[in-house]
Amino acid sequence: MKTFSTCFSPALYPLFKEQDSIVVVVDILRATSAICTAIHHGVGSMIPVAGVDEALHYKQQGYLVAAERNAIKLEGFDFGNSPYHFMDEALAGKNIVISTTNGTQAIAAATDAGEIVIGSFLHLSALADWLHLQQKNIIVLCAGWKNKFNMEDSLFAGALFQELEQKGGFESHCDATIAMTHLYNQAKGNIYEFLEHSSHRHRLQNLNLEKDIRYCLTANLFNTIPVYRNGAIVNLKSALAELQ
Amino acid sequence: MKTFSTCFSPALYPLFKEQDSIVVVVDILRATSAICTAIHHGVGSMIPVAGVDEALHYKQQGYLVAAERNAIKLEGFDFGNSPYHFMDEALAGKNIVISTTNGTQAIAAATDAGEIVIGSFLHLSALADWLHLQQKNIIVLCAGWKNKFNMEDSLFAGALFQELEQKGGFESHCDATIAMTHLYNQAKGNIYEFLEHSSHRHRLQNLNLEKDIRYCLTANLFNTIPVYRNGAIVNLKSALAELQ
Repeated sequence: MKTFSTCFSPALYPLFKEQDSIVVVVDILRATSAICTAIHHGVGSMIPVAGVDEALHYKQQGYLVAAERNAIKLEGFDFGNSPYHFMDEALAGKNIVISTTNGTQAIAAATDAGEIVIGSFLHLSALADWLHLQQKNIIVLCAGWKNKFNMEDSLFAGALFQELEQKGGFESHCDATIAMTHLYNQAKGNIYEFLEHSSHRHRLQNLNLEKDIRYCLTANLFNTIPVYRNGAIVNLKSALAELQ
Repeated sequence: MKTFSTCFSPALYPLFKEQDSIVVVVDILRATSAICTAIHHGVGSMIPVAGVDEALHYKQQGYLVAAERNAIKLEGFDFGNSPYHFMDEALAGKNIVISTTNGTQAIAAATDAGEIVIGSFLHLSALADWLHLQQKNIIVLCAGWKNKFNMEDSLFAGALFQELEQKGGFESHCDATIAMTHLYNQAKGNIYEFLEHSSHRHRLQNLNLEKDIRYCLTANLFNTIPVYRNGAIVNLKSALAELQ
């Protein structure tokens, strides 16, 4: 049996890290949903950088740069972190730098993991299928909100564990995973409604981002799996093709 | 309105701390349940120390000392952290030093808080009544298990928030609290059964501590409220009497 653990905050990740496990980084609203959308729509790579200074440095070098803080696109950059920014065919094959409040910090925390894969509801089943085939221990690293627990990332961990448990071969002795599987069972009929009182949905609601929220909570829109390779997030298919 | 926040790990407490708030430290299985039991049964004070060395130092000075690591009483000390160790009338008025895997570490993390109060299911309603009267912001600090989330401490946060929400005057914009209130609603019919698959219950079960677990999950056995004053945990009533 392989194990499945859920880490609620990048600040706690050092307690979880383990050689040769797969880390699933998730920031449902909205960084990892945006990254998955971009890769699915043909963006060549998304380069996550934690700091705004670094993002600015890339911008000055001519890169397209997405930079967001506190749910708002930063002045002077090309995109925020709305998934809708990355559905543009004109972006196919481009390399886009991205820096967000929580998501890219979470990726930065895990860069020494055996493997990092990007999680979202948008490709939940495809991700579960792929993880099942790998037969490695899994750590879901929730980006949270400024290192605090958040509802939507944690619910995703419950959703993913439920899929993997059904396939077999995985178990969890981790209370965080067990709690979130219970909670996901409560929420799954209508995650959008369930999140109504959550802090981050409230934060985004005030910014009129209802459309983004509904999109990010939609399960299984596509089968594209984004993975982190040498500092950039790319389509798993391209990464595998390169190895051949 | 006053706020109610839930911190899942002593390692995250620096993100929560706030001047003049009341911190409720909770380690349901078993440190804070044992402390509450001791104070209720007339122990004069419980002196929490984080390290075993410090506990040993007190022991050499002639103190009664409770010391536990990984759910097992340490050799050479007087007690572990079973609540049943502290129901002895012969302990009335004594000062007992206590060091445990998680609970006393959590208290140590919060010693600069405006006020620390000790939480347990055993005096849940009395604690809620008292907190309601204070009208201050509340942070529940879950001891967790070696800085990871644990189920029973977090469920307690949900239980406490539910009581306070019903009384009025409190709100939570904290996803951790909202999640645990949902989960507590699922669990409250039979917390013992709900915890069946949780990691720590499993750990204690293997040590034949069923009786301890059932006791620690029993709500409202007494009204005694233990508070932290100048390095020791004492009965709130004695603390107030001293001020008069």
